[in-house]
Formats: sequence, structure tokens, C-alpha cells
Amino acid sequence: VFTVNWDVEAAEKGGYDHFMIKEIYEQPKAIKDTLSPRINKDNVIKLDDIKITKEELEKINRVYIIACGTAYHAGLLGKVLIEKYVKIPVIADVASEFRYGSPFIDENTLMIVVSQSGETADTLAALRLAKKNNAKVYAVTNVVGSTISREADEVFYTWAGPEIAVASTKAYTTQLVSMALIALDMAVKKGTIDKKEYDKVLNELRGLSEKAQRILDNTELIKKASEKIYKAQSVFFIGRGIDYDVAREGSLKLKEISYIHSEAMAAGELKHGTIALIEEGTPVIAIATQERLYDKMLSNIKEVKARGAYVIALTKQGNEEIEKTADTVIYIPDVVDELTSVLSVIPLQLLAYYVAVMRGCDVDKPRNLAKSVTVE
Amino acid sequence: VFTVNWDVEAAEKGGYDHFMIKEIYEQPKAIKDTLSPRINKDNVIKLDDIKITKEELEKINRVYIIACGTAYHAGLLGKVLIEKYVKIPVIADVASEFRYGSPFIDENTLMIVVSQSGETADTLAALRLAKKNNAKVYAVTNVVGSTISREADEVFYTWAGPEIAVASTKAYTTQLVSMALIALDMAVKKGTIDKKEYDKVLNELRGLSEKAQRILDNTELIKKASEKIYKAQSVFFIGRGIDYDVAREGSLKLKEISYIHSEAMAAGELKHGTIALIEEGTPVIAIATQERLYDKMLSNIKEVKARGAYVIALTKQGNEEIEKTADTVIYIPDVVDELTSVLSVIPLQLLAYYVAVMRGCDVDKPRNLAKSVTVE
Repeated sequence: VFTVNWDVEAAEKGGYDHFMIKEIYEQPKAIKDTLSPRINKDNVIKLDDIKITKEELEKINRVYIIACGTAYHAGLLGKVLIEKYVKIPVIADVASEFRYGSPFIDENTLMIVVSQSGETADTLAALRLAKKNNAKVYAVTNVVGSTISREADEVFYTWAGPEIAVASTKAYTTQLVSMALIALDMAVKKGTIDKKEYDKVLNELRGLSEKAQRILDNTELIKKASEKIYKAQSVFFIGRGIDYDVAREGSLKLKEISYIHSEAMAAGELKHGTIALIEEGTPVIAIATQERLYDKMLSNIKEVKARGAYVIALTKQGNEEIEKTADTVIYIPDVVDELTSVLSVIPLQLLAYYVAVMRGCDVDKPRNLAKSVTVE
Repeated sequence: VFTVNWDVEAAEKGGYDHFMIKEIYEQPKAIKDTLSPRINKDNVIKLDDIKITKEELEKINRVYIIACGTAYHAGLLGKVLIEKYVKIPVIADVASEFRYGSPFIDENTLMIVVSQSGETADTLAALRLAKKNNAKVYAVTNVVGSTISREADEVFYTWAGPEIAVASTKAYTTQLVSMALIALDMAVKKGTIDKKEYDKVLNELRGLSEKAQRILDNTELIKKASEKIYKAQSVFFIGRGIDYDVAREGSLKLKEISYIHSEAMAAGELKHGTIALIEEGTPVIAIATQERLYDKMLSNIKEVKARGAYVIALTKQGNEEIEKTADTVIYIPDVVDELTSVLSVIPLQLLAYYVAVMRGCDVDKPRNLAKSVTVE
């Protein structure tokens, strides 16, 4: 008798140990698949499923970006980019809080909901609240035919492919890219961005996939950093602006799969309380990719170092000065400040993954969590 | 030779072991001192130092509330109350993030800055940014003649008296009360609140001082709860809406003075990651004072209980059902939903204090922290 040990799951993992790491490595392709069909060679963005007209857009005086968990973290980039390029104030909020507040929604409101599964209960409820009050709703989702995609006015699909691991990775990076495309499309329609800046960001978008691949090709330093922190009880992620948003996502990844209590803080808020928790050896992951905030971050890093923190800094190639203060420096390829999070999150995903593996955690199916939260 | 052991500090503490606990107990008086001079017996609010006219207020179409740390947590109540009573959208943000974003400030913008010391560097910078862009600025501060009070257009003093302990307590509760008075004053001037609701909230404000005293007169249960959690590595605070805002403040208090890694979460976000951290015995402080969110909170409490959490619930007198699920229930006197945080924070301050004392921490001067953050 001849027995074949055959494992469907292993086969689907394509040689990777876990779905999560497979999906992390699929990001260069996912980013490309989300971008390519929407940008032609003349740098014109065409979002087939977003049919809003210039006239409709001009009426919009308020934008809400509503989501939960990782999708909310992606939405935070949407806020930055729409405020910058489209000059409309944006309120980004988690769906479970937004639903029960006193939102100001009318026919001049645009709501952008973000949900990988397109079935997130609180996000769906926010969408319905917006529709009931005559707002226009965009959905950014990864699942064709999902409830949210059916009920929204306009749909933007992230072409990330199926995401199996509970901890979201490629859905997040493609959501970030979606936010950029949506903001730029609005800005062009409204005439609020000049051609030079537009072309610059477009060209930077095109380069993201290859730069993401470069990070994934060189992970030794991230593995070493993981060894330094995998036994920690507490970890802090700090950043400012877009770096704070990605800090939240990095912290959530680590929490979800390694069960280490990690927390993200706006670096400028540290001194208002949280710095009391920093003692000898406390790991602090400091994200410092934003040019105009770089010096401020350097001084925050010095503050935590002075209290004994073990600092892993993440910055852009070229910012070598940070090596004088941080214990480990992880570089991402140079990229325009507005798009750094698409790259800077990748070392953070890898860090969470390696740490969770070192701790023997069930990476793909963390305890207590479901892939898609369809209850409120 | 006769020696007198005389200690100035001990004398100033008026019989209390620490300034912090003395200041916690001063809250009923501080609340009263902040309210009384501003409400006459006919329920008319008169804010002497806020001279904004009805015409000026009517032009305002955007409000920013900007602060750091505890003052920011107080500002979050301002957002809720102004949106509800004055029907103007409010963006509340921490000063160090706000300063470097793309804020929309013009002559139709009102900025409210909150700072106990009136010297907080980032908050002051936000104020100056607003002034430069012709916005109207209110300052809420505890220190007469402070830089922020001098540079703002209108000043609202919290009459909390000197606050010595680094961890802010009576400054916070008086800031909350200030937010209510400012929102109501705006609402009356703009005619956006009806007389019945106005009178109700006013009467509730008058009752706060006595209700705060009632909490302080009966602290046995809070002491017992502190004994259950003081050895914890991690603590989570959860809530929704105003309860989430006070959860952030409660968590910050615990962090600052006990050095336990505590974190506040919007209860509806738990399932999107953080619930993975809940295991047998993890303390969860669940704040559930809001009537329309009570059932949602009950189900969040059940979720964390199912994962083994030790739950200390905080709710209003009368909500006995919660006892079936939570391990300990701390009641606050009945009060209108919009003002619960003035009371619900008091047990959280006491909890932080008792835990810090049990851990042998230097309560009044926690490591790494300064009372007033005058550097960026």
C-alpha cells in the first residue's frame, strides 16, 4: 500500500510556511494589479467604476472616511491625501464610533467606506446611514459582489486577490494605493492639483511595486531586529503624521499575531504620559520617513533612548544621521513623503510575522479573531 | 535639645499622603468654583471673559479643539457637546499632530485650545497658527496670566486651584465642565438648543459637585478592585462615545503613575485585533454609562469575559443587569449622558492612584514626566 501525505493547505501556500508571509510577498504584484489597469501611459487615471462627475464633485464640501481596524488605518492616508490634493476637510473615523456620534451628512457629503471583505457590519451600517441622508458613497473593497460593493454608489476594487490570513497585509497596501488614486482622481476633476505635482506622484506610484520587492528581497536586518524584541512584554510604535498612521497598523499587526501588548502613539504625545512606561530595554519602533518631521522624530528618539529604550528606527535611504541614536535602522527605498506608508508598513508586517513565529503563535489564525467581522 | 520634624510638603498636603489624592478630593469644590460664578439663579450662563457676539458666532462654520494629553481628552467632550448643541462640525486633535497637518483655518474658524498650565508648547504653536490665519481663539486654562491666556482672543479659566501632582485630575474635571459651559453658551447665542434641554443640562451641571462628593465618600469597592489588578502587566479600558473618551483618560492616569501598560480602545474596535490580547485574568475596565450604547457595551463585556478577562465595569446607578457579566461593578450617581465623564473619571483616577500606591510608585512625581510640557 502506498500512502500519499497530501495537504491542500500546504499546496495553496505555494511553498511558504503561512498564508500571511505568502500574502506579504504577494504585495508587489497586488500593488501593480491595483494600479496598472487605472493608469495609462500618458499618466491619465481612469477609474472605471467611479463615475462621479466634475459637477457632482464640486458640490462636495465634506468627506467622511469610515472603516474598522486595518482598513481604518488605510483610510487615514485618504484623509491626508484628499485634504492635501483636493482641499476638502476629511473626517476619518472608526465605524463603530462614527455610527453613534452626531455626523453631519447631507447631499453634499461624500463618504468613502473601506472594507477588505465588503461585509464588515459596522462599516456597512455607516454606509447605510450615509445613503439614508442622501450622501454619495464610494466603497473600497477587495471582494467583488460583496454587500458593501452592491450598496455603494461607486466601487473601487483593490485587486489584491484572496486574502486568507486573518491579519491583513496585501489588502492594506492596496487600500493605501486606492486612497492615492481616488484622491488624485478627485483633484484632477476639481482642478486642485498642478500638473507637475500630479505627474510626480503618478511616477512615484508606478515605482512602488518594484521598491516593495526590494524590501522583500533583503529581510536579514528585520529578522535580526525581531530576535531582539520577540520576548518583550510591551512594545511601542511612534511616528508623526503619515508615520503615526502606519505606526498604528504596525502595532496592530504585532498585537494580532504575536499577542505582545504593543501600542502606537503620536510621537509628540509621548511626553504627556506614555514616556513613563519606557524603561531599560523597552522596544520602541520609531518611524521617521517624513522629511519635514524628521528632526522632530530624531529628538523623540533621543528622549526614549535617554530612558533606556531599544530603538528600531525606520526611515528612508539617505537619512543616515539616525544611526547615531537608534539601535537598529531599517531603510526603505526613497519615495515621495505622501506614499511612504505603502513601503514602510512592509518591514513592520515582516517584524510582526517573524516575532509571532519565534513565539510559536498560530500566525494565520490568531486566537479570538475572525477574518471578517460581520457582527457589530 | 528639642528637634521638630517639620515638613513643608506634608503641611501643604493637608493630611493626605500625596498631592494627587488631595487634588482628587478637591474636585467637588473645583467643579463648583468653575461653575458657580458663571450660572445665575435663573439658569443664565454668563462667561465674562468670552465676549464673542451672536453675529461673530454665526459666521463660524468650523471648530477645532486642540490640546495635548489629559487636556485633549477633555477636549473630546467639547467635540461631542458642540456638535450636539451647536450643530457645527468639530475636529478635535492633539496639538503635535494638528500643527503638521493641512488644517483648514480662516476667519470663519473657531479654535478652542485647552491647557492646564497655559504654557504647553505644541498647543501654543497651534494657537499661533490659528491667529495667523485670522481664526478666533478661545483658551481654556487654569493659570491666570499664562502665555496661552494672553495670546488667545477669549479666555475661560478653570478655577481648579493650583495642581501640584504631575498626573492631572481636578484640572481635567473642570475642563470637562468648561466644555459644557462653552457649548451651552454658544448654543444659546446661536439659538440651537431648546429651553427644555438647556434647563435640564444646567440643572444637571449644578448637581455634579455633590454627586462627585458621593463617589469620594464611598471608595471601598474601588480599593478592592485595585487590589485585584495592581499586579497586572497589561490593562485595557474600553468604552463607546463619551465612555471611550473617558477610557482614554483613565488609561493615561494608570499608565502615568503605576507604569502598567494600559491602553484604551473603542469597544467596537476590539474585534478588529486587540481582543487577541485578552487571556485568562487580563483586567478590562469597561465603561458603560451611555444609555443608547449600554446593550452594545454589555455584548462587548461578554466577549472579553468569554476570553477570560477580569472585568471591572463602571455604569450608572440602576444598570444592575451588568452584574450578571462583570466581575466588579462600580456605580456612579445617575446623571444625564452628556455629563457622565465628570463623574465616571473619578473612580478611574482613584483606581490609578490606589494601584500606584500598592506598587510603591512615586505617585506625585512619576518618572520621566514633567508637570508642564514647555518643549515641543
